[in-house]
Amino acid sequence: MEKVKVIIWGFGAMGSGMAKMLLKKKGVEIVGVCDRNKNRVDKSMYEVLGIEKEDRPEVIIKKNIEDVVKEGCADVVLLATDSFTKNAFDKIKFCLENKINVISTAEEMAYPQAQSPELAEKMDKIAKENGVSVLGTGINPGFVLDYLILALTGTCESVESIKAARINDLSPFGRAVMEEQGVGITEEEFEERVEKDDLAGHVGFPESIKMIADGIGWEIDKIEQTKDPIVSQTYRKTQYAEVEPGNLAGIRQRGYGYVDGKVLIEMDHPQQILPEKEGVETGDYITIKGIPNINLQIKPEIPGGIGTIAMCVNMIPHVINAKPGLKTMLDLPVPRAIMGDMRDLIE
Amino acid sequence: MEKVKVIIWGFGAMGSGMAKMLLKKKGVEIVGVCDRNKNRVDKSMYEVLGIEKEDRPEVIIKKNIEDVVKEGCADVVLLATDSFTKNAFDKIKFCLENKINVISTAEEMAYPQAQSPELAEKMDKIAKENGVSVLGTGINPGFVLDYLILALTGTCESVESIKAARINDLSPFGRAVMEEQGVGITEEEFEERVEKDDLAGHVGFPESIKMIADGIGWEIDKIEQTKDPIVSQTYRKTQYAEVEPGNLAGIRQRGYGYVDGKVLIEMDHPQQILPEKEGVETGDYITIKGIPNINLQIKPEIPGGIGTIAMCVNMIPHVINAKPGLKTMLDLPVPRAIMGDMRDLIE
Repeated sequence: MEKVKVIIWGFGAMGSGMAKMLLKKKGVEIVGVCDRNKNRVDKSMYEVLGIEKEDRPEVIIKKNIEDVVKEGCADVVLLATDSFTKNAFDKIKFCLENKINVISTAEEMAYPQAQSPELAEKMDKIAKENGVSVLGTGINPGFVLDYLILALTGTCESVESIKAARINDLSPFGRAVMEEQGVGITEEEFEERVEKDDLAGHVGFPESIKMIADGIGWEIDKIEQTKDPIVSQTYRKTQYAEVEPGNLAGIRQRGYGYVDGKVLIEMDHPQQILPEKEGVETGDYITIKGIPNINLQIKPEIPGGIGTIAMCVNMIPHVINAKPGLKTMLDLPVPRAIMGDMRDLIE
Repeated sequence: MEKVKVIIWGFGAMGSGMAKMLLKKKGVEIVGVCDRNKNRVDKSMYEVLGIEKEDRPEVIIKKNIEDVVKEGCADVVLLATDSFTKNAFDKIKFCLENKINVISTAEEMAYPQAQSPELAEKMDKIAKENGVSVLGTGINPGFVLDYLILALTGTCESVESIKAARINDLSPFGRAVMEEQGVGITEEEFEERVEKDDLAGHVGFPESIKMIADGIGWEIDKIEQTKDPIVSQTYRKTQYAEVEPGNLAGIRQRGYGYVDGKVLIEMDHPQQILPEKEGVETGDYITIKGIPNINLQIKPEIPGGIGTIAMCVNMIPHVINAKPGLKTMLDLPVPRAIMGDMRDLIE
């Protein structure tokens, strides 16, 4: 049997991380890479990764997707270019129309039904017409604040309410993330940027909330989100950020899912640098009130970068095996590490 | 659309618990019950449960399965009669041949491939010939020490080893469990009964270990299990048990899965009454060594009784929707609570 053929579209931290992971796996090969960064275009993927090519066929990073994706030339495209469904849509459409399955890292694609139901319907139709599937996944949305919660409810006779928190440390991230998350800015600047909708924060609460609600059969009548400054009491400094006392160590984002006018799903996602400076322990926390009550913690939190890379790669066989259409984590078998030959998982 | 029709075979704690759960759900009805206990036979299911029948059709508990299961008369049989595949096999075969899906609580049925590969193959064949499916599930095996571990590995680039523990409290259980688990006996009696293979303990380690290994692609070359006495230092007393210092508060059972001669999967399941008497905190604990490392805890543990009942009921739509054959938790979508109408989940 031929190896599973993968194309990677977008070769930043996520895309290149998936490449590195795939190169360690059996029964799978990378047959194409598309990226628009001029420092990478026209170079060997192996050179960019700093990994020996050995006896593997060369892969040259191409700028134009038409030079990479041809009808049926691969089993799956890993699309790591966007956060929003509307921006990923045309790219996904292009791959599906070339009869190739797609796994997208776009946070909104974890459950596009939440905010882009029309695009979700279109993707489902295009995928079915072309006999392939498309899935959005990642660590969050995709796992911690939705899939894992859903799985726990599987042990419940009934669920009354759900609270979950992902408390993480931004310290390992670079300048771009510090900027997006407002690390080091003053409270005034925070207010201004929130006003201008210029603080990205976490993308995915509506997706996680809607996926849980649809999964267990609750009708959501409203989703709310808030952003609050995490004002540092102490001086904090990392390689890429410096925070004076009184300024922002990060942002605390919360999401609320209402069912019949009551908040039944509550999510909390404070992200800051050096949380231990003020005694904050990072971790993933889930509390389900129901029959039975369930209290879960994962300490420290499952890391976001590796987690997203692994989820996308580990879902490859499930997406290839799936019935054609738009898929979500609600539809497919349990994600799991692939320590054997990936071909053994293809039906 | 007609309601989902369920038959319950075996009306002990599990079977009657499933009935109570089902009676609270929408879009599903119990159409038959089979049980051999003479206190229940020929009585109304509602009378036995102590629940008002209201305007629901009567369900009389029958002793003979032939009086309950007729070809295609229900969508699924919940089989709650056995722990071992070989004992459940004929019952499963009978239901499948009557073209009805089956969900079994038998611990070994969570992964019959582990210890009864021939029977597993036969069931798969019979199920396919009759266009229906069979699944074994429960809290453990079925969730805590296998499915949940597998799901966590989905966020891993690679896995080096897995350790997991389920530390629970036997205090709420009755006399039968105290007897099976050796609560209150002397160390000598423990040795004798282990010798005679007369201490049931936990059934399911080989199933959980093999399910994880097959799921992630490890080849298991050996599975070992041990039983050790939990010798109480203190006097412990519950409604159904009394333990003198020096005697057994319970049994600690461990399981080891070897890959290439090394223990890569290690499971620990100490069960005793009043563990808090000696500072033992109950809980479910999972530690994955890999990229990344993951440390999960659920405190207290997910309760076994409700958990098993809920898993079996919540998997009903997935089993009805499944492609025909023998299914395991590796094959089906994420288990989740059913808070809406069960019919909405049927494809």
